[in-house]
Amino acid sequence: MFEDRNIPKTSLAQLGEFALIDHLTQTFELKNKSSKLGIGDDAAVINHEKQQTVISTDLLIEGIHFDLSYMPLKHLGYKAVMVNLSDLYAMNAHPTQITVSIAVSNRFTLEALEALYEGLALACKNYTVDLVGGDTTSSTSGLILSITAIGEVSKNKLTRRRGAQINDLLVVSGDLGAAYTGLQVLEREKAVFKANPNAQPDLSPYSYSVGRQLKPEARKDVIELLDELKIVPTAMIDISDGLSSEVLHLAKASAVGFHLFEEKIPIDPEVSFISEEFKINPTTAALNGGEDYELLFTIAQSDYEKIKNHPLLSVIGHVVEKKAGCQLITGLRQQIELTAQGWQSFKDQ
Amino acid sequence: MFEDRNIPKTSLAQLGEFALIDHLTQTFELKNKSSKLGIGDDAAVINHEKQQTVISTDLLIEGIHFDLSYMPLKHLGYKAVMVNLSDLYAMNAHPTQITVSIAVSNRFTLEALEALYEGLALACKNYTVDLVGGDTTSSTSGLILSITAIGEVSKNKLTRRRGAQINDLLVVSGDLGAAYTGLQVLEREKAVFKANPNAQPDLSPYSYSVGRQLKPEARKDVIELLDELKIVPTAMIDISDGLSSEVLHLAKASAVGFHLFEEKIPIDPEVSFISEEFKINPTTAALNGGEDYELLFTIAQSDYEKIKNHPLLSVIGHVVEKKAGCQLITGLRQQIELTAQGWQSFKDQ
Repeated sequence: MFEDRNIPKTSLAQLGEFALIDHLTQTFELKNKSSKLGIGDDAAVINHEKQQTVISTDLLIEGIHFDLSYMPLKHLGYKAVMVNLSDLYAMNAHPTQITVSIAVSNRFTLEALEALYEGLALACKNYTVDLVGGDTTSSTSGLILSITAIGEVSKNKLTRRRGAQINDLLVVSGDLGAAYTGLQVLEREKAVFKANPNAQPDLSPYSYSVGRQLKPEARKDVIELLDELKIVPTAMIDISDGLSSEVLHLAKASAVGFHLFEEKIPIDPEVSFISEEFKINPTTAALNGGEDYELLFTIAQSDYEKIKNHPLLSVIGHVVEKKAGCQLITGLRQQIELTAQGWQSFKDQ
Repeated sequence: MFEDRNIPKTSLAQLGEFALIDHLTQTFELKNKSSKLGIGDDAAVINHEKQQTVISTDLLIEGIHFDLSYMPLKHLGYKAVMVNLSDLYAMNAHPTQITVSIAVSNRFTLEALEALYEGLALACKNYTVDLVGGDTTSSTSGLILSITAIGEVSKNKLTRRRGAQINDLLVVSGDLGAAYTGLQVLEREKAVFKANPNAQPDLSPYSYSVGRQLKPEARKDVIELLDELKIVPTAMIDISDGLSSEVLHLAKASAVGFHLFEEKIPIDPEVSFISEEFKINPTTAALNGGEDYELLFTIAQSDYEKIKNHPLLSVIGHVVEKKAGCQLITGLRQQIELTAQGWQSFKDQ
């Protein structure tokens, strides 16, 4: 819908597979000492020396995970990397390499793939990550992206979902719900555009939310802050499916319960404003919306002074016994049991 | 076409995404010391200690890379792992872990995915590789598999495509062309089955070729043999796109040429017999067929005595100067310049 129709279009059939990979990856350089061998052989070679290696992988499919009618390809490339880096930060690790496999149908041009790789390159640059491998092939329909992120962490900093202790504080970075309200706005504009292709959307009142949906950032800064503050969280996860679902994951893995205070959940004023427009509850957007890519973690009470009033971090609850379950405590002190209503991949469609 | 229609069918919508992953992966155990943390957190954790880590990834798409009308899902799972392990063996490395991401449309049942994971499990067992992560999601059409293989290699054994020296011998493991002739047979039987669904194919005269196409093995044994013989190849690649294409890759990476002798190319008698039936040249099947997953490598002449007459290995040529190019030398001593006519991913369809 926001596509520039004046760019040149070169058919992928004009290049071979190997020439295409060479063309798309020629400007990528290896920056990390641990990247021993990148693209161009049967496998990449990495050496993390005395650190442990962490690996996470995601598969992103057009029509399921993204909609190219409002997601520019450059942003998609950037976001696809963020999604994976976020998983490594959630282990308290530092990303060092990625591999990127793509499958595209013949409707994609070379210029479209160049835009996608621009986004990948920008993500690699901003996060000092090296592209070291991948696979490029054709698909029967649409675009498929598979990214594997590789990182390093020392044994004493590795943070799992398991490890939260009773009375630990529950902390979240940034704010929640905006990626979801951004998606609502984009879906509405898509419907308007379908009805009237000449309509020019004014997204400026929604810029924060739309930005959170289209160009999220992974929380490298939070991991660096924790390091500076000498805090190793007792458990951590990133928020991809919504706060509610992630709290339940921490609870299950750590065999504990949580009390979560509704009024403590950080929500941007724009989210409240859009929620009113769409007649949704902003807390629901935060709990179930997902795609915020913030970090959710638990820390010992003794670390509280170190993070108190830090603008990046909010204490939103604490760990309780497993039998107390996971409860949202509202402003009126009602307890509502948390349920996972995040994105369900296999619902009947 | 060879599907058993009596197995129970459970819809994926009856399970959630997390329950599905749990169900499919519950019988997988971590066997390797280097697998520190497997499925169930934000990322897997691996520690190769003093070894270097090697990583390779492949994306396999229904209708492009495989045809479920003759590829049973269990075999597909097995083959998908082999394709990736083969890339690691081509670095002279030992595979230790894999991650597997799958996307499936609603036409797949739980039982179908169980069959796929049985194949993955068998591959992991036979090659002592741990499944440590992945992603499971829905697709708009068909089955998509993305596998990343992780392995380890010491610095002094790492073998790249670059490194072949003039006068080195060119060696290939096993025999070539059978995966291609197997594919021809399966495609023919598929056409017969479409015309007459009651036709029962007799594949027994083609069993070696069909087996090579449906259930290839990666050459772990060859890597182990080279280790025993104390041979570190000067350059190596695996044969996925056909001998011709792979020779050209070695030539380009090593900045050399090759003389390849037609009569030395190892071809199974069944390949010759099927080639006659299909009116194709068996040498062409070996040169351009692909999917053999044999290893192609160069060794110093001084290592010749160690491999002479070994049943697993054939010397098929030698390295010449770059300006001499890559030549196939026929029985009549004609020179034919090698060209890559392997599988072209982006040709107009």
